[in-house]
Amino acid sequence: VAIGIDLGATNIKVALVDERGRVVRKAVRECTPTRGPDRVIADMAEACRCLLTDGGLSIDCVVGAGLGSPGPINLRKGMIIRSANLPGWQNVPIRDRLRSDLGLHVELDNDANAAAYGEYWAGSGYKESGGGGNLVLLTLGTGVGGGVVLGGQLLHGHFDNAAELGHLIVVADGLLCPCGQRGCLEQYASASAVARRTVEALSGGAGGGLAERVRLGSEITSMDVARAAAEGDELCGRIWREACLYLAIACVNIQHAYNPARIVLGGGLSEAGDALLSPVRDAFRRQTWSLMDDAPAIVLASLGYDAGVIGAAGLAWKAANQQ
Amino acid sequence: VAIGIDLGATNIKVALVDERGRVVRKAVRECTPTRGPDRVIADMAEACRCLLTDGGLSIDCVVGAGLGSPGPINLRKGMIIRSANLPGWQNVPIRDRLRSDLGLHVELDNDANAAAYGEYWAGSGYKESGGGGNLVLLTLGTGVGGGVVLGGQLLHGHFDNAAELGHLIVVADGLLCPCGQRGCLEQYASASAVARRTVEALSGGAGGGLAERVRLGSEITSMDVARAAAEGDELCGRIWREACLYLAIACVNIQHAYNPARIVLGGGLSEAGDALLSPVRDAFRRQTWSLMDDAPAIVLASLGYDAGVIGAAGLAWKAANQQ
Repeated sequence: VAIGIDLGATNIKVALVDERGRVVRKAVRECTPTRGPDRVIADMAEACRCLLTDGGLSIDCVVGAGLGSPGPINLRKGMIIRSANLPGWQNVPIRDRLRSDLGLHVELDNDANAAAYGEYWAGSGYKESGGGGNLVLLTLGTGVGGGVVLGGQLLHGHFDNAAELGHLIVVADGLLCPCGQRGCLEQYASASAVARRTVEALSGGAGGGLAERVRLGSEITSMDVARAAAEGDELCGRIWREACLYLAIACVNIQHAYNPARIVLGGGLSEAGDALLSPVRDAFRRQTWSLMDDAPAIVLASLGYDAGVIGAAGLAWKAANQQ
Repeated sequence: VAIGIDLGATNIKVALVDERGRVVRKAVRECTPTRGPDRVIADMAEACRCLLTDGGLSIDCVVGAGLGSPGPINLRKGMIIRSANLPGWQNVPIRDRLRSDLGLHVELDNDANAAAYGEYWAGSGYKESGGGGNLVLLTLGTGVGGGVVLGGQLLHGHFDNAAELGHLIVVADGLLCPCGQRGCLEQYASASAVARRTVEALSGGAGGGLAERVRLGSEITSMDVARAAAEGDELCGRIWREACLYLAIACVNIQHAYNPARIVLGGGLSEAGDALLSPVRDAFRRQTWSLMDDAPAIVLASLGYDAGVIGAAGLAWKAANQQ
């Protein structure tokens, strides 16, 4: 088996994954990044050892480990440069620390890239689809993350920062993003953005079925918006359609940029299922060109919250097989 | 030497290129695509043989040939599928025809890709810049073409149709493009679009220094617009600034998609030189994020009209060196 680790702001997920991408055993631990990298790295290693012990496996059965981490990351140095989700962490040489703690070869990549590799390597029906090695993942969660597999390899670019697809500009001079840009995809099509835009509109006096809940101060999620939109709520319908439209425009741009066989939609927003997929596909067909028949298949992620650990383990398998 | 061939709608360019990307000898022939593929392919081969004879070289001195062609192209089959610029050509197996006519190994790619490979392989200062193998070319001519080199390899994607960067959507619901999309980059930032938009505005009754020329029916080029904009003409200034703004937004999206070290601007519009480069760089700095310091260098193409033949020859050298 290979060990896959998915480091998040609130959880550390670990899994043992076999050569075909199947999860043999998995576990989740709380993560408290404020305790500092040393403690978190020790927790990660401990979680891996427990998983092996519980499975009755020794470390000799493990080909290596992979870690998906929030970023940005310096791949050559194996470092987390910093992260909005890991406050206080700066230039943490996490790959080498984990390597010496575990006594295993460790592959490091950012979380969205690891998940993209998971969907490519073990995602439902992908290998069978004849799609070759070209797949793009959009994770629609707190932000919008991106991962790009080309010819079976993750794309990193010159600054290790390729596939930051949440920051594709889809509206010139649009909504301000904390990144400093205006009109980023993630200001329209992340789960958080859909919820936030609804709350803002309702707080601004707009009517709608969720108005009462907002007035009482209860939290609204993107799923609430999706549900209200499906029930005919006008405001929620408008915000949902706009999210789908800008996702579709981003998919057209991804089509022309990378020409992938498949675009996979994951993260919180994708839990809406067909209520997301159908309007995105419709808008994509309306927005894309008629010149060539090179439209990617747009599908929902199939690995759910396991995509990160599976993909991280997949990177470990890849490294082991190349040795 | 390697032979580089650049097939265009009006010209066939051929060149002998040495291993370091220098043009040893070159020639241009008229191309009349309406005479059909057979005649044009025979002309191409004949032009190559003449070039060798004139240079006192035998075919044994040639490592191979590369051909940059209008597309779309089927790379596996070595075919031109069709082309707006080569009316009537359909599924032309140009690679194998040329191979048997010349008796040489032939590499085929589309024209923008070949030019991008040229700028990467032999462009001014690129290798020395430490940029590694990551470069994106935008050719701003009749349309906007794109070519992407990642890790020293041209990006093709699953359908051989990656890097169609002229069809990135930069304005949702924007100007209609013949490709069927709305708001494509090439509707704002190709040399033709800049000229056409100016003529349309002037024909619509707008004033400005070029109005008289349009009224008299003389042709307006993007260089005329650039010049008038520089001289303070309001209408031309607005159209020029808009071209630069949308180019900058495309550059931001290219930054986040591929994370290249360098974005190269070529084609007719780039002949404006600093009048293009400065406002594009300024707008890029205003539009891009402040989160990371991963901005690509934006520069003018350095190989001019030779980029295509040099790049095509570079692909032939690459193939020869891999054997």
